[in-house]
Amino acid sequence: MQAPVGVFDSGLGGLTVVRALRRRMPRESIVYLGDTARVPYGTRSAATVCRYAEACARVLTAHGMKALVVACNTVSAVALEPLRAALDVPVIGVVEPGASAGVAAALRLRQAGGTPTVGVLGTEGTVRSGAYERAVRQVSPEVRVVTQAAPLLVPLVEEGWLEGDVPRLAVRRYVEPLIAKGASVLVLGCTHYPLLEPVIREVAEGLKGGPVCIVDSAEASADALAELLAARGIEGAATGQARLSLLATDLPATFSTSARRFLGAEVPDAVQIDITDRPSTLPPLR
Amino acid sequence: MQAPVGVFDSGLGGLTVVRALRRRMPRESIVYLGDTARVPYGTRSAATVCRYAEACARVLTAHGMKALVVACNTVSAVALEPLRAALDVPVIGVVEPGASAGVAAALRLRQAGGTPTVGVLGTEGTVRSGAYERAVRQVSPEVRVVTQAAPLLVPLVEEGWLEGDVPRLAVRRYVEPLIAKGASVLVLGCTHYPLLEPVIREVAEGLKGGPVCIVDSAEASADALAELLAARGIEGAATGQARLSLLATDLPATFSTSARRFLGAEVPDAVQIDITDRPSTLPPLR
Repeated sequence: MQAPVGVFDSGLGGLTVVRALRRRMPRESIVYLGDTARVPYGTRSAATVCRYAEACARVLTAHGMKALVVACNTVSAVALEPLRAALDVPVIGVVEPGASAGVAAALRLRQAGGTPTVGVLGTEGTVRSGAYERAVRQVSPEVRVVTQAAPLLVPLVEEGWLEGDVPRLAVRRYVEPLIAKGASVLVLGCTHYPLLEPVIREVAEGLKGGPVCIVDSAEASADALAELLAARGIEGAATGQARLSLLATDLPATFSTSARRFLGAEVPDAVQIDITDRPSTLPPLR
Repeated sequence: MQAPVGVFDSGLGGLTVVRALRRRMPRESIVYLGDTARVPYGTRSAATVCRYAEACARVLTAHGMKALVVACNTVSAVALEPLRAALDVPVIGVVEPGASAGVAAALRLRQAGGTPTVGVLGTEGTVRSGAYERAVRQVSPEVRVVTQAAPLLVPLVEEGWLEGDVPRLAVRRYVEPLIAKGASVLVLGCTHYPLLEPVIREVAEGLKGGPVCIVDSAEASADALAELLAARGIEGAATGQARLSLLATDLPATFSTSARRFLGAEVPDAVQIDITDRPSTLPPLR
């Protein structure tokens, strides 16, 4: 049985990354963990996100993963280096691939005399971390980055409220400052946002009065993983059966329903695991 | 030093209950715990909410509380009996007082020939539990209850987005079915919602074409606690200094800022405590 790629996210959003991985690398087995008992991560402190991320990585290590994809922008933004230091397997986040794809698009769209500008929509944790600014600077110091926290978009997606006035007005509130600052590219800096892509595109192009490039980091991350597995010679065997396992820390039935909507009807049921409380030093309840 | 009343909520919302307690019982010391590392509770399973509630109660037990107020509708809806069974001190939730106040208002507003009807806005967990239906039936079998999950209202309040088109449209989506089913009373079945009360009132009265009674269970719960402390003879001493302590499991600075907005500038800083992860049986990270 071949070793799987481990993937985790705070909840459902990372399934957009799983979809891209399966399309790009159909021979790879995947173990996905959604930490649905503690979602969302984007509103929490960096220290708490690191603690939660460590617990998730520990579960996937126990499943024998050969590489880890952190399919959560908030974790990628604040906990990637601690995870890389702690784990024996290679670790890929979604921020670096998304930032690279954003830079490429901004340079492609650049206009004479203008500064190529990437706009990033993200959670509060991701925006506060400055991770996209750092990642873009690594790739191209001439590209400017403007960021905007968009805290209402995750709840809208979780509720399935993807069209109509409320999502349009919420998206407008977050996208308007990015377009006003000259962004011609919008990086969807949270794995939930691709479900709102039609609204985001419509609003952004309406405000811009022309085309805006939307970057979904799931595809970019799948490319980065494919390169990494090939470079290390640890790709899945051409024979052998690629498996998909889904783990969730709460509400596995709801999780399975969403996973089938994302990935197709043949997806197996999610298994509930418990990684949450620890017995504290306080007196236990009877 | 007199024993405090313990109060907990998943996050900030329960501070509306603290405000009511302090107004009603200025001599009582209070220890408040906001489980900001795991907020929100309203979208989680009953089993997970019970586990989180137990951990919170354990902390307050260690602080020597003489009574517990569960200032969270979701916990009151699904975990009140387990907490009562596990703890040595009396436990009050917010569902029963809110339901009683709702029934009283519906009977007061009843019209000849109509069925007095209480509408409840709550989280998914609260609505799924059926706790308001049970609580109302206890008080008056002739009053009808209609409920509506309103998952976007907590994120709106947490983001401070309390006026304008987006809150109005979101509130309208949730309130319309309740008014259509004949509700003349709306119980705010989540401690976050009182901050949206002006919008909820405006939308509800617009749809109803007349007055709608809005019930905030914080006040009703404060009355219930006052009665309970008096009945047991465990009220705070007339002399002695009433203290307020605030504990939070994440982002204590943000929590303190909000607490001052809710309760006044003299409120002490929140102290961060950690009640989240346990070392699992899986191999630890290096």
